[in-house]
Amino acid sequence: VKRIADSTVRRLSVYLRYLEELAARDIGTTSSEELAQYGGTTSAQVRKDLSFFGSFGTRGLGYSVAELSAKIREILGLGREWKVVIIGAGKIGSALSAYRGFAQRGFVVVGVYDNDPSKVGRPVGRATHPRHQRAGAGRGRREARHRRARDPGRRRPGRGRPDRARGHPAILNFAPAQVQAPPGVTIKTVNMAMELEGLSYALRHRDE
Amino acid sequence: VKRIADSTVRRLSVYLRYLEELAARDIGTTSSEELAQYGGTTSAQVRKDLSFFGSFGTRGLGYSVAELSAKIREILGLGREWKVVIIGAGKIGSALSAYRGFAQRGFVVVGVYDNDPSKVGRPVGRATHPRHQRAGAGRGRREARHRRARDPGRRRPGRGRPDRARGHPAILNFAPAQVQAPPGVTIKTVNMAMELEGLSYALRHRDE
Repeated sequence: VKRIADSTVRRLSVYLRYLEELAARDIGTTSSEELAQYGGTTSAQVRKDLSFFGSFGTRGLGYSVAELSAKIREILGLGREWKVVIIGAGKIGSALSAYRGFAQRGFVVVGVYDNDPSKVGRPVGRATHPRHQRAGAGRGRREARHRRARDPGRRRPGRGRPDRARGHPAILNFAPAQVQAPPGVTIKTVNMAMELEGLSYALRHRDE
Repeated sequence: VKRIADSTVRRLSVYLRYLEELAARDIGTTSSEELAQYGGTTSAQVRKDLSFFGSFGTRGLGYSVAELSAKIREILGLGREWKVVIIGAGKIGSALSAYRGFAQRGFVVVGVYDNDPSKVGRPVGRATHPRHQRAGAGRGRREARHRRARDPGRRRPGRGRPDRARGHPAILNFAPAQVQAPPGVTIKTVNMAMELEGLSYALRHRDE
């Protein structure tokens, strides 16, 4: 499997949403036309997206919802366990930390970092801390807690990463700051300010 | 001004975050090197990004924080008023609807749509409804309320848009479904499921 474009990965997520809806309604087959309509794209694009991963579906019968879902989930790496740390525990970061979709996709939130010292040590949502869970039987469910992150406004140049994020393979950054990931760590930034400013830019320039 | 790449717009947002931090600390000037360090990019990239919009800064003295902030805010269309409707009022959509960053960027949330009938009519966050505000003096602050959206899982093909979103220039979609915007409406989808699946894909394939 060669590396595919971000836009293709995003469409695969969209197709998977539709397949999950069909499965919930006990519908067993679908077509590239239906997937295209849901995804706001063309059936040729759907077939092209799926062709990256081999041959799917049966001519004239369409795709099996169960089989195509399983294949997309495998491609996306869902069903494995990934440890993730969250940076930024404001209102949005906290709502997102409690998002059930993490567990559904195999993500285990092992820590939430914030630069507000008053938040450190407080529990966050329902995120669990697997190291503690595994440390002894009968301990039950533990909640992740805020941890101290460097203040990005005061950091020394080039040292924006929270030191204790080392050793975790994935970082989700909700803080309004750039975070530099150590080698081997995958980082994803989800920033509402940036999304809003992108929307504002598009509105400002749409008549040009 | 010609249309610039999304990645450039995102970096302008990042530069603006840094300039706001500097302003809060009463620092009056900065350099492309400092902006590059904060943004995780190179000073050549900073100068290139800013050159799209004409000439900035003074050789040897750097950029005026106030002047560069004002210019980036203008480029991004900040400071104007934009009406926006939000689609999807789950935990994340609700947290986001209450986000102070909307007002700071001139966005007025005029409605929140959801496909859950039990939410319709309930207030959402602190979003205000300017039509009601303007209807009479002394009415005070009104909160935006949930409204009914078509259930994306049951919509007819090609009819995914909430009819009452017509007439609003901007839609922020937090629902786990594709929304097709009517002509003239700018839509931005922020979808945590998609972000997580993109992260999962990156983790799954990073050693290839």
